[in-house]
Amino acid sequence: MVDFQRRIQQLREEMVEKEADYLFLTPDANMFYVSGYSGEIHERHFFLVISQQNEFFFIPKLYEGQVSEETWIDDFRTWTDSENPVEKLEQELEKDDVGKILVSEEMDARFTLDIREIYPNAEYGLAGEVFEQLRISKDEEEIEKILESSRIVDEVVAELREGGEKIIGKTEDELAEIIEKKMSEKGGEKPSFNTIASSGPNGAKPHYEHGDRKIREEEPVVLDFGCYRNHYRSDQTRTLVFSGEPSQKFRDVHEIVRKAQHTAFEKIEPGVEAREVDRAARKVIEDAGYGEEFIHRTGHGVGLEVHEPPYINRENTRKLEEGMVFSVEPGIYIKGEFGVRIEDLVRVTKDGAERLNHSGRMWN
Amino acid sequence: MVDFQRRIQQLREEMVEKEADYLFLTPDANMFYVSGYSGEIHERHFFLVISQQNEFFFIPKLYEGQVSEETWIDDFRTWTDSENPVEKLEQELEKDDVGKILVSEEMDARFTLDIREIYPNAEYGLAGEVFEQLRISKDEEEIEKILESSRIVDEVVAELREGGEKIIGKTEDELAEIIEKKMSEKGGEKPSFNTIASSGPNGAKPHYEHGDRKIREEEPVVLDFGCYRNHYRSDQTRTLVFSGEPSQKFRDVHEIVRKAQHTAFEKIEPGVEAREVDRAARKVIEDAGYGEEFIHRTGHGVGLEVHEPPYINRENTRKLEEGMVFSVEPGIYIKGEFGVRIEDLVRVTKDGAERLNHSGRMWN
Repeated sequence: MVDFQRRIQQLREEMVEKEADYLFLTPDANMFYVSGYSGEIHERHFFLVISQQNEFFFIPKLYEGQVSEETWIDDFRTWTDSENPVEKLEQELEKDDVGKILVSEEMDARFTLDIREIYPNAEYGLAGEVFEQLRISKDEEEIEKILESSRIVDEVVAELREGGEKIIGKTEDELAEIIEKKMSEKGGEKPSFNTIASSGPNGAKPHYEHGDRKIREEEPVVLDFGCYRNHYRSDQTRTLVFSGEPSQKFRDVHEIVRKAQHTAFEKIEPGVEAREVDRAARKVIEDAGYGEEFIHRTGHGVGLEVHEPPYINRENTRKLEEGMVFSVEPGIYIKGEFGVRIEDLVRVTKDGAERLNHSGRMWN
Repeated sequence: MVDFQRRIQQLREEMVEKEADYLFLTPDANMFYVSGYSGEIHERHFFLVISQQNEFFFIPKLYEGQVSEETWIDDFRTWTDSENPVEKLEQELEKDDVGKILVSEEMDARFTLDIREIYPNAEYGLAGEVFEQLRISKDEEEIEKILESSRIVDEVVAELREGGEKIIGKTEDELAEIIEKKMSEKGGEKPSFNTIASSGPNGAKPHYEHGDRKIREEEPVVLDFGCYRNHYRSDQTRTLVFSGEPSQKFRDVHEIVRKAQHTAFEKIEPGVEAREVDRAARKVIEDAGYGEEFIHRTGHGVGLEVHEPPYINRENTRKLEEGMVFSVEPGIYIKGEFGVRIEDLVRVTKDGAERLNHSGRMWN
């Protein structure tokens, strides 16, 4: 069982430290993290309000039954269509003298304006201020869920590799559909993000997903996909050649990326700055003469969201801590020819790191 | 061709009237309405900025190509990953002394906080202030698109009616799937909202969509669906009995709703207050003794969004104008037994109203 009491206790400690009097959350990963409620954003005023004194849901009456089934929180302040939600909310708020209020990053302007109407003189900030530290290190239960989700993508890659010949001649669109179907059959609830299956020169376009280009022999395909299961995400990339022998240039570049990914992985341990991991991958690629072709950061945290802290880039001086989970995904993109990216999720352990993906990293 | 120049000219006039110095839009129906760009909300700083002086997109460099294909606006101020988007935005804004700023209703708090950092002393409001009057009356081209979308649902209803016997024994889920497939085959790009196919007592639950209950003989099914086509929506409801003779009570209630819907329709003409249309429908139902069972408003505007002004409810004193398009959808919900709702889209004409849906309104 998730220890929500511990989470909300830690959250309150963070709120004290950041001098935040109130936290207003709309449905998002943070709301799920502290309450267990995982519904989507609503058209209407739907908040979880947290202070040092209490925590309560302020929601339309008609959602009370559904929300109460998912959350441990039992304090519901509700409003109906015949009431003005802003007046009703104001009545439920005990504090008059409010210094600082944090709101969900994605709260709609129409709602933040309503909160500002109630507390026009407060200082406003974003919920990440107090949630980042809580969520950045995953507990064993969370890691187990990320592992379950990651095993699904590992199995899909293994199957694609085995049936490689059969992929030749299919379009990227068809390949993406096969991947998503396989993830679903293995228990993935939905893709974690838009599946990427980019073949040949398309692999060199950083934002390309898939299209009607056919997969050819001797040609690499960048396969970047993941799934959502039990609220947690996976994210992994392999660059495969389904049949035949690719060019020497591709094989050389693949080997450089493989080394960069491995070198970055080896660098990971508690206390190391995130940017040092980025630096380790980048140095291998720069030394091989492809620095200009490594056009993105080395990685990003993964958990309830597919992009969350810690970010593994050139600037981030944040020190790694046990329990952090993030991607390590260097790449080289040769315009007009091909792209290579290799990505595993990793967890920071007590004295190093552990990969959460286990399918082979080679192209064949 | 859409006359974007006229739209932005009218928008500027509204901005003068509402004393708004700047308008910041994130991707939404308003952005589409003035620019033609219909992309979805992005993770990153992605704004259309409009003042009396100019209009420009402030977007990540990598989206410039894609956006420029969809919009007539040719002024792009872009930022790259190596820049701070807030500092960059501040450089692009010419005004120092800003009184009032309007932002998209659904702009994320993380973006509104950035804009407030640049203009901490401005008054803030929502874009609807200047867009409502522009969008509330549809021009001929818009109405043609709503009609195209509405013809699709009309045809689907006609086919369901003809093949009625075959529906018996299917689940509501299966029926909803059939409806969505038919809409798609006829050119609907996606459902306009979650399709409702609620049979028997489920029809009396206002927020029920569909489930594993099987459709039975002699039992009414509330079918509320619509599609999205060419950026415009349809929305229509019929309550059908697919086979056999329903109860006398149902037939009586259906006739009351049919009359209420017709009476409300007859009431519509320019100059009439929206609430009078609601009142007309409500009076028929109240007079028949079912006032307590008509638990929602009579209608809502439909266009780029499936719920937009004008709202046809008890309070709205807004006067109807030629070109307004809205639903007329009274209903009666008998808990534990059945529900009846009949809904057409209508347009306000020069001296009355015209229905945009043409399938039969009877239950058989």
